[in-house]
Amino acid sequence: MPTFNQPLGGNDSPRFSGPNTMMRLPAQPTAEGLDACFVGIPMDHGASNRPGTRLGPRQIREESRMMRPYNMATGAAPFECMQVADIGDVPINTFDLKKTIGIITDHYREILKHGTIPLTLGGDHTLTWPILRAIKEKHGPVALIHVDAHADTSDEMFGEKEAHGTPFRRAWEEGCLQNDKVWQIGLRGSGYSPEDWDWARDKGWTVIPAEQCWYKSLAPLMTEIRAKIGDAPVYLSYDIDSLDPAFAPGTGTVEMGGLSTWQALEIVRGCAGLNLVGADLVEVSPPFDTTGTTALIASNLLFEMLCALPKAQKK
Amino acid sequence: MPTFNQPLGGNDSPRFSGPNTMMRLPAQPTAEGLDACFVGIPMDHGASNRPGTRLGPRQIREESRMMRPYNMATGAAPFECMQVADIGDVPINTFDLKKTIGIITDHYREILKHGTIPLTLGGDHTLTWPILRAIKEKHGPVALIHVDAHADTSDEMFGEKEAHGTPFRRAWEEGCLQNDKVWQIGLRGSGYSPEDWDWARDKGWTVIPAEQCWYKSLAPLMTEIRAKIGDAPVYLSYDIDSLDPAFAPGTGTVEMGGLSTWQALEIVRGCAGLNLVGADLVEVSPPFDTTGTTALIASNLLFEMLCALPKAQKK
Amino acid sequence: MPTFNQPLGGNDSPRFSGPNTMMRLPAQPTAEGLDACFVGIPMDHGASNRPGTRLGPRQIREESRMMRPYNMATGAAPFECMQVADIGDVPINTFDLKKTIGIITDHYREILKHGTIPLTLGGDHTLTWPILRAIKEKHGPVALIHVDAHADTSDEMFGEKEAHGTPFRRAWEEGCLQNDKVWQIGLRGSGYSPEDWDWARDKGWTVIPAEQCWYKSLAPLMTEIRAKIGDAPVYLSYDIDSLDPAFAPGTGTVEMGGLSTWQALEIVRGCAGLNLVGADLVEVSPPFDTTGTTALIASNLLFEMLCALPKAQKK
Amino acid sequence: MPTFNQPLGGNDSPRFSGPNTMMRLPAQPTAEGLDACFVGIPMDHGASNRPGTRLGPRQIREESRMMRPYNMATGAAPFECMQVADIGDVPINTFDLKKTIGIITDHYREILKHGTIPLTLGGDHTLTWPILRAIKEKHGPVALIHVDAHADTSDEMFGEKEAHGTPFRRAWEEGCLQNDKVWQIGLRGSGYSPEDWDWARDKGWTVIPAEQCWYKSLAPLMTEIRAKIGDAPVYLSYDIDSLDPAFAPGTGTVEMGGLSTWQALEIVRGCAGLNLVGADLVEVSPPFDTTGTTALIASNLLFEMLCALPKAQKK
Amino acid sequence: MPTFNQPLGGNDSPRFSGPNTMMRLPAQPTAEGLDACFVGIPMDHGASNRPGTRLGPRQIREESRMMRPYNMATGAAPFECMQVADIGDVPINTFDLKKTIGIITDHYREILKHGTIPLTLGGDHTLTWPILRAIKEKHGPVALIHVDAHADTSDEMFGEKEAHGTPFRRAWEEGCLQNDKVWQIGLRGSGYSPEDWDWARDKGWTVIPAEQCWYKSLAPLMTEIRAKIGDAPVYLSYDIDSLDPAFAPGTGTVEMGGLSTWQALEIVRGCAGLNLVGADLVEVSPPFDTTGTTALIASNLLFEMLCALPKAQKK
Amino acid sequence: MPTFNQPLGGNDSPRFSGPNTMMRLPAQPTAEGLDACFVGIPMDHGASNRPGTRLGPRQIREESRMMRPYNMATGAAPFECMQVADIGDVPINTFDLKKTIGIITDHYREILKHGTIPLTLGGDHTLTWPILRAIKEKHGPVALIHVDAHADTSDEMFGEKEAHGTPFRRAWEEGCLQNDKVWQIGLRGSGYSPEDWDWARDKGWTVIPAEQCWYKSLAPLMTEIRAKIGDAPVYLSYDIDSLDPAFAPGTGTVEMGGLSTWQALEIVRGCAGLNLVGADLVEVSPPFDTTGTTALIASNLLFEMLCALPKAQKK
Repeated sequence: MPTFNQPLGGNDSPRFSGPNTMMRLPAQPTAEGLDACFVGIPMDHGASNRPGTRLGPRQIREESRMMRPYNMATGAAPFECMQVADIGDVPINTFDLKKTIGIITDHYREILKHGTIPLTLGGDHTLTWPILRAIKEKHGPVALIHVDAHADTSDEMFGEKEAHGTPFRRAWEEGCLQNDKVWQIGLRGSGYSPEDWDWARDKGWTVIPAEQCWYKSLAPLMTEIRAKIGDAPVYLSYDIDSLDPAFAPGTGTVEMGGLSTWQALEIVRGCAGLNLVGADLVEVSPPFDTTGTTALIASNLLFEMLCALPKAQKK
Repeated sequence: MPTFNQPLGGNDSPRFSGPNTMMRLPAQPTAEGLDACFVGIPMDHGASNRPGTRLGPRQIREESRMMRPYNMATGAAPFECMQVADIGDVPINTFDLKKTIGIITDHYREILKHGTIPLTLGGDHTLTWPILRAIKEKHGPVALIHVDAHADTSDEMFGEKEAHGTPFRRAWEEGCLQNDKVWQIGLRGSGYSPEDWDWARDKGWTVIPAEQCWYKSLAPLMTEIRAKIGDAPVYLSYDIDSLDPAFAPGTGTVEMGGLSTWQALEIVRGCAGLNLVGADLVEVSPPFDTTGTTALIASNLLFEMLCALPKAQKK
Repeated sequence: MPTFNQPLGGNDSPRFSGPNTMMRLPAQPTAEGLDACFVGIPMDHGASNRPGTRLGPRQIREESRMMRPYNMATGAAPFECMQVADIGDVPINTFDLKKTIGIITDHYREILKHGTIPLTLGGDHTLTWPILRAIKEKHGPVALIHVDAHADTSDEMFGEKEAHGTPFRRAWEEGCLQNDKVWQIGLRGSGYSPEDWDWARDKGWTVIPAEQCWYKSLAPLMTEIRAKIGDAPVYLSYDIDSLDPAFAPGTGTVEMGGLSTWQALEIVRGCAGLNLVGADLVEVSPPFDTTGTTALIASNLLFEMLCALPKAQKK
Repeated sequence: MPTFNQPLGGNDSPRFSGPNTMMRLPAQPTAEGLDACFVGIPMDHGASNRPGTRLGPRQIREESRMMRPYNMATGAAPFECMQVADIGDVPINTFDLKKTIGIITDHYREILKHGTIPLTLGGDHTLTWPILRAIKEKHGPVALIHVDAHADTSDEMFGEKEAHGTPFRRAWEEGCLQNDKVWQIGLRGSGYSPEDWDWARDKGWTVIPAEQCWYKSLAPLMTEIRAKIGDAPVYLSYDIDSLDPAFAPGTGTVEMGGLSTWQALEIVRGCAGLNLVGADLVEVSPPFDTTGTTALIASNLLFEMLCALPKAQKK
Repeated sequence: MPTFNQPLGGNDSPRFSGPNTMMRLPAQPTAEGLDACFVGIPMDHGASNRPGTRLGPRQIREESRMMRPYNMATGAAPFECMQVADIGDVPINTFDLKKTIGIITDHYREILKHGTIPLTLGGDHTLTWPILRAIKEKHGPVALIHVDAHADTSDEMFGEKEAHGTPFRRAWEEGCLQNDKVWQIGLRGSGYSPEDWDWARDKGWTVIPAEQCWYKSLAPLMTEIRAKIGDAPVYLSYDIDSLDPAFAPGTGTVEMGGLSTWQALEIVRGCAGLNLVGADLVEVSPPFDTTGTTALIASNLLFEMLCALPKAQKK
Repeated sequence: MPTFNQPLGGNDSPRFSGPNTMMRLPAQPTAEGLDACFVGIPMDHGASNRPGTRLGPRQIREESRMMRPYNMATGAAPFECMQVADIGDVPINTFDLKKTIGIITDHYREILKHGTIPLTLGGDHTLTWPILRAIKEKHGPVALIHVDAHADTSDEMFGEKEAHGTPFRRAWEEGCLQNDKVWQIGLRGSGYSPEDWDWARDKGWTVIPAEQCWYKSLAPLMTEIRAKIGDAPVYLSYDIDSLDPAFAPGTGTVEMGGLSTWQALEIVRGCAGLNLVGADLVEVSPPFDTTGTTALIASNLLFEMLCALPKAQKK
């Protein structure tokens, strides 16, 4: 049996010491030889309200330092069956959003070439669009589980096609998605027209407003989603603003009345059994995360994504 | 069809730009010609523990900048059927609480003269008393939905009749309320005697402690309340400290074990269909609102109040 | 009827004034003549991640200033039937953890000699071990209700036997516990091995992971626990990190997906009727408690513990 | 030799433990038997911009916990030659500013009756006026050293005679001051007219704008002031906003370009040798004092005031 | 005599109330009829390290609410001799930095057409370049007083020509500057080569590192600068990071060892007498300005710029 | 010419990206082959008041990310003439202070064996004692430049010999110092006796209280110190609390009236030309460093220490 990379343990080095990689895993510059990788995209030029997500990957790694290798709730033991590392950040161009989108796609093409599943530390939500483009080249159109307060299906923002409110419109235009297998969970708040979410419904997507989630377990929803997706390749895009700001204040476009962390865990854990080909956790903005909790939640959800990957389920 | 005032859109001016009015609506100095108005009362001299609510109206407006004109959950489209504006702040006397109470009543008499429904941005809870006095002059005694951690029915605080712990006692004394149609929702915490809430019950009011609300939807409660109120004129007074501090830490007299934002939305949305003649949102204290979330919730609940007004329901 | 100590009232002295004792109760240097006492242990040298709990007792007292003498939810009137005071802090040695453990045990021997029930303001969780040792000398092995995100049953941390991850292992080794009457509620997060919690189960303890608590009242669980404990002496150890960080961010080793304050209140109130011989509230770290809410919750839970004591139930 | 009260030492009780009195001195309810006392006035209803000074006395005491009994710079040993205690707070009426002013004067009459020199922890600057009134009754008109960003000599604010911008106008009207022995140090900022400070100059007062203090020691100024005052009774009123906000951000009406702490120490130390009959430190607003430094400076300046008292100089 | 716009006074409306315009001046949509205007550029896509300056104009206006109309230090009375208003923000494109640069130049061409002097609330430093381009079209090459921690004369950042590290290189390339009349004051910190500042010196500019400013008044320097500039048109660009972070922490690229606010006031006041044709205050980043002091300093320096304009000196 | 390690440049990777090593230098596990190294000691169990310095090394590295390789003030180019790396943290035992002291000495023996000069990121000041012990074994007794608010020469704290108030007493006892070549700069505050600093003077050390430093350059002092030290081996111990809290609030035992960053830079730069054999920067406590400025200053002073090393001066 090969020896896989392990997170640095708390008895080997105090939790307040050690490297600032995701889960204190080894770092390597490329995805070569990896089953899955953590990769950061430190950008916020796609954000329309409060900035700060450029600092997200740094802070998510910082708050990941407490995590241990086993998932007590699901029994997953990802570091016993997968080779995982932190491959650092995509070298984005912070002064040009359009160029950055091209850089991201190129970078993910390279990751995917190694057969590695990318787990992305965002960064604003614009980034999911160039990732999905690369994913499509590798896997064809994918099922999508999109957890968010906002639909992010605008055609334009300020006249621009590329921004954090448009990634799923762009992905749809380029045929990246299997439209009968798209879920948007947690949408809420005020809108520009009562029909804001009908665009998605017209495409065959399933919209699940936050109000339908209140006070209850989302495990049954995930059972239903898994049944419908079957073995199609799936991408999971998790916007931290899907959570109520009580749980996750550190983000840029806050909407009250959102999901709880209990539900967030059920959603990500509920992806186990699916053919996950990639996932991202976006919109963590450290300047507004006064206690570090938002980044800590993000780091835990990324670990849960790792635990939900097919190889982590094979045991 | 008349053209109504519209909130300044995010594609017309970035969300981090534009005027600091409620929802980036037009400002006007009086209520003339308005169906409803947002009005601030920047005071905290009625507060007994932590101060800061004098800064509440400013911060609520600041955090309202993300809001769009349509209510995705209820379908309400207030700016299609009502003329609404921000009429600024009541010119209170920050060095004299007693004079301030008179100033407030005068100011609301003037607003009500125009047939405008006032939605108030507080300010400490003392302010509800002088508003109710003006409301009574216009509408006679009203039904009351009072959401709060505290009963605010003390006879005196430090020997004073007017403070943020006494407004509903004063309102009762002056016959402002229909006593069989008064609800106090969310009460909790420690008390000065086991009978603290019996004063209200003796008057015929309904007290619903927070404990009765835990883990469940309050939609059924609101259905019941609507049935009992019928078409009586109703005033809604929403103290942000009714919420658990996980959701709304930015207030002065915090009590653990409170309502969730899910419930807050259900309460305010549940007022649609009633004959609402006024509403307030009080006790937001920005110096203790480290992430801005408390003010953001307040601004959203004020928008929900607007959406619950009779005219917004006529469509 | 004797006249008991009373908390200083809000109409006698503004809430932002007065002494910094627990609930603004009288202070006294020893436990002599007391039915119950509040006592602080200002330490954090047992903490493995973020420090700061040495400032916990100070801040819990500070945030206790709003509390009034009656429990509106349970009807308990502790200051009508018990003599209670704040006896200050244990004079720990902040430069030597091992000596501190001896100092604590000695201090509690002295408290218990007076027949006083100690309610402890922590301080990191290491402190429960020396308390339990003193408790055992007085009461023999006790039942234990342990609320926490972590099991705290490690054998060693960094090669040391005494730290905030080991107190219940030590207590078990010395026979302080009735193993068929031990509950660990709220455990969650990642672990060092899938068997982390089996050590406790093997001893006969009951482990209730956080996931089993989500979305529901814990009153039934407490009914069950009371039935099993009967009249055995019971110790309650409440780690504030059992709460989800949305509710209690001010602690050192945060885990997402935890209990709510609604559940915390049910747990502590559910101890009424038991033969409680002591209780602690640990791991409040003020430097990470940006709004003061964590310490405020702690102070309220300590009051609830007081209300749950046998003498407070006798009325 | 009598044994005087001593601050609790850091080797007797950790600095993060112990009572929350000024310098961890013994508390007593009245000034009886004291040479000097620390007394708090927790008020902010006289403040015109940001509130919070009601929490000032609490926080100044909190941050005084590090202080040791000897003044290394001046050699003063106040606790070797004076009986000093913390006599708590004046029981102000937080809902009525005018009544509060009467309460303060009465309280200081009582303190002065004991021959005790009061060192006051503010509270907003309104409080100096009722103190000066009591001082005058005891000592006749006094010399005044007033350190501040603002002149505080307005006739009215919002039409009110009593507020934190008017105390020295009121004191002048009632003949509390020796007009040829009044200094206002540190004035700056924008004004309502170019003649704002001429009112004082017309009375014979000396105005020293901040600009005249920049980049240099104020020891020569204090030498000059001492020479002019001679043995007249002197009152020192120190507004923390005299300091540049780099040094003291935690206050309500901030002005850039102020004094440094180096100069503040020189001013207070420069009062040694004068016949000081009272002193105050006002306008510390903890909600805006994010690091605690402003309150810490305040506590140190109060200690320096103690060290500058005549009895502390007799050795 | 015409009646000019006046800031809303503190006795007309409490300081914590009123509109959120600069100094609570009237707002108007264009510069028409104005001698000088305040104008915001809410952008941060030119920033290379910490973001947040997009929120700068909002916060500078917020913190300007305390300012009164007269300059007590210089005697300037700008609102007695000039028509001034707040003309809101430039409608920048937050998703495209290059387009934004064009938008800014167009906007300033329009302002300058009215003969109005623009005082700009930034925003990251990239904005000075498009302003200088518009200024040149109106006034020809100008003298420049540039106060900053950084030279901002890089040729490229990440391969881009336009960013907050390049504006003065671009301005030089297009002949916007009179090279013998350019001063860079406050430069410091680490560099990419020992020759970083020689590029400027080679062009004839005068570089004054921070070290040459320590411990002393800069009034003599300003006398010298005024003498050399004579009556040439002058632009003043003030980067808030020129200040030591003790004074101004709320910015993106902090360097220790900087200027004091005393010196900042001397620099801006020292511009009185020059033919100022425009000025900006840039790089205020509110998310890192925890006490609001940085924005407050910025608002005061903008007022000082207004007071230094030629028309304010004519009296 | 060998190619030396270089800090990762801002044009190679955005400043908000990249590894979390000191100055984004390469990491290596030992000092082998290095002329100088950065090494962290993440401890706070020697601290007597506020904790948090265990998080210091992490945060200093975080805030070092803006630094470029050349010293613009001194011309030093350390990365052109020395091999430098970040060798991580000493594996201290966070539960046992006494063991930690042994671990530190062993670790520095190993570093010194390689002929590497250690530049230490603290950590509380206790750590200087075990470092000096290792230094003495290598270099014999050394000259000492100790910059601090406190003398740190107590014999005991709470009865313990080893704590952050005793390191220089211990070092003296073991003959680590050349007593005629010891300077303590910046001492101030209150003391336990007027003779607190005489112990040091009696040993031949030079005490320079903060008061002697106010308002002036310390360059002359450093010239004098260099002359007296000559070519003796020198250790520099820089406690960040030597700075006034206006500049460096993020530390545990704050004293007002301290040094400025201008003076701090002069002190460290003034060490160039000496035979520096080691240096440390201690007492940075991130939980109290709300804007990150304290850690940023620390990281810059560590870079200045590197620039002051003998090899960096050889050019």
